[in-house]
Amino acid sequence: MSLSNWETKKMGKFTLRYQPYTLEMKHVFTVASFSRNTTPVVLTELEYDGIIGYGEASMPPYLGESQESVVSFLKQVDLGSFNSPFQTEEILSYVDALAKKNTAAKAAVDIALHDLLGKIMNQPFYKIWGLNPDSIPPTSYTIGIDTEEMIRKKVSEAGQFKILKIKLGLATDKMIINTIRSVTDVPLCADVNQGWKNKEEALEMAYWLAEQNVAFLEQPMPKEQIDDNAWLTAHSPIPTIADEGCQRLSDVTKLQGVYTGINIKLMKCTGMREAKRMAELARSLDMKVMLGCMTETSCAISAASQLAPLVDWADLDGALLIGNDIYSGMIVTDGICKLPNRPGIGIIKN
Amino acid sequence: MSLSNWETKKMGKFTLRYQPYTLEMKHVFTVASFSRNTTPVVLTELEYDGIIGYGEASMPPYLGESQESVVSFLKQVDLGSFNSPFQTEEILSYVDALAKKNTAAKAAVDIALHDLLGKIMNQPFYKIWGLNPDSIPPTSYTIGIDTEEMIRKKVSEAGQFKILKIKLGLATDKMIINTIRSVTDVPLCADVNQGWKNKEEALEMAYWLAEQNVAFLEQPMPKEQIDDNAWLTAHSPIPTIADEGCQRLSDVTKLQGVYTGINIKLMKCTGMREAKRMAELARSLDMKVMLGCMTETSCAISAASQLAPLVDWADLDGALLIGNDIYSGMIVTDGICKLPNRPGIGIIKN
Repeated sequence: MSLSNWETKKMGKFTLRYQPYTLEMKHVFTVASFSRNTTPVVLTELEYDGIIGYGEASMPPYLGESQESVVSFLKQVDLGSFNSPFQTEEILSYVDALAKKNTAAKAAVDIALHDLLGKIMNQPFYKIWGLNPDSIPPTSYTIGIDTEEMIRKKVSEAGQFKILKIKLGLATDKMIINTIRSVTDVPLCADVNQGWKNKEEALEMAYWLAEQNVAFLEQPMPKEQIDDNAWLTAHSPIPTIADEGCQRLSDVTKLQGVYTGINIKLMKCTGMREAKRMAELARSLDMKVMLGCMTETSCAISAASQLAPLVDWADLDGALLIGNDIYSGMIVTDGICKLPNRPGIGIIKN
Repeated sequence: MSLSNWETKKMGKFTLRYQPYTLEMKHVFTVASFSRNTTPVVLTELEYDGIIGYGEASMPPYLGESQESVVSFLKQVDLGSFNSPFQTEEILSYVDALAKKNTAAKAAVDIALHDLLGKIMNQPFYKIWGLNPDSIPPTSYTIGIDTEEMIRKKVSEAGQFKILKIKLGLATDKMIINTIRSVTDVPLCADVNQGWKNKEEALEMAYWLAEQNVAFLEQPMPKEQIDDNAWLTAHSPIPTIADEGCQRLSDVTKLQGVYTGINIKLMKCTGMREAKRMAELARSLDMKVMLGCMTETSCAISAASQLAPLVDWADLDGALLIGNDIYSGMIVTDGICKLPNRPGIGIIKN
């Protein structure tokens, strides 16, 4: 795919460029509700005073955004009335108010703006935020729902990781865990993707998984089953984490008591600025914080990683799952995220 | 007073300097519990790589800190194990853990560190935080408890202000408000400093004050009377704001329902970093935010002002009340705070 076809939009002192791109996944990826082997994204660039910030929107199809909807949203964005990228709060409030939802499209602007600001200040964003990159927890690596043979193959390929994220939510749950436990005793976390419908069965599985050294349960039941999720959280021997049930900052206070913690993803919450507020709010409410991702290039992954020193669990393997990343940024070595000491989100084009 | 007697402390790559200084107040200042005409402060400087950040601790005597306690605290601080001022989170966590309370002493380090960081990044902190300085609410100006004649004199001197803060809490409350209303109809806010003890009388006063165009009540009753403050908040026609009842970030969630909002002061909450978190947390909890100060030089006032675009009410007159400010920074013009476009907290020595 050519990357020379940027749409360019001049807006006063700012220039926005964007281009659809299709990520090719190394393995077919299966979770409780679907399988796929590509992910559509839109890459962005935001230029001000000769400095360019990079951004990205990633649109797994089940979340309702597409390359078309993102491009359509970006066509609406006009930063011409803003004099400076340092009017961050107002710029991002304006972008957020342009339309409901469209959170990945908004994140594509937010990430590019943060990269631009970091480059103007000549510092990585984790430094601007005062965070120590050496305190990022080990990132998990995701094993999708698959056959026994493929699971064994994927786990053996994942030898560097200190924690594996296992997709559950189907009748094959125990088979998958038993298969993994036949080849490794590395800690696991379980992402059920709303796959369990009955709270008593969910609790039984929670106890069984705790015995299998599973650290926590992500979105065990449908997000609409608030009372059931709260009941499970109150009784479960391991923490529960809201993913589908937690999109934005305004959701967090409502989730106190329903889940032990939240999974923050830039594509759900409109980007780095709101993600940081969600992490700090959850901390103030004594909730756990997980930082996740979609299938993304090193652009959005490196953006999220700037925040990773603040969280309990990192799940930042999105760029490792694709074969055609076009940026280099945060790298994973022995399961540990290493942030580049470069300004902004710290990426360069491959 | 000479300002050439800095104590100097080398700590690895950092150098900390500090010096006690006594602020002389233009007017004798009376609130519900005491009168005074000076305020002790300690000025600080934090140097790294040839760049110097300025800080300040201000110690109104009733809060329990003194020049001696601040100097004693600063003697304990050793940043020798930190390689970079960008390890902000860890540096300030270390400083906070050195001793309980001592919040002004901790703020003196926090402010100097933020000023230093802003100078390294060559940007004012309000820009680093992405805030628009044009959206700061008008600052109030404080009229202490006094005779009718002095109150008239002070109000006439305060002609530029769009809102006046009136100290109440004694038997003279209605006399003071009536005196002010005989000379001006500018909006007021009432700071009771825990002066009212009876909730029914407090509610009666709240209704009377609302009719006198008083915008809100600060700390109407003793902070220990939690149920009474909550009852008043539920029944009052105007918002209630916690001041003595709200010190730090960990207090904020507990004050939901007890007060309508909180008054954040750097000297209570250990400085700029925690103050910003408190403002954002209060917002997420749908609480109002006021930003206040002690009697301070333009150093601590300019530090607090960086945050002021985030708040509902600003009360940043502390440097206007003194006759021997040694810095220039944020200035008040026609009752509006104007932030200098200088790096860090934006101050220069006079």
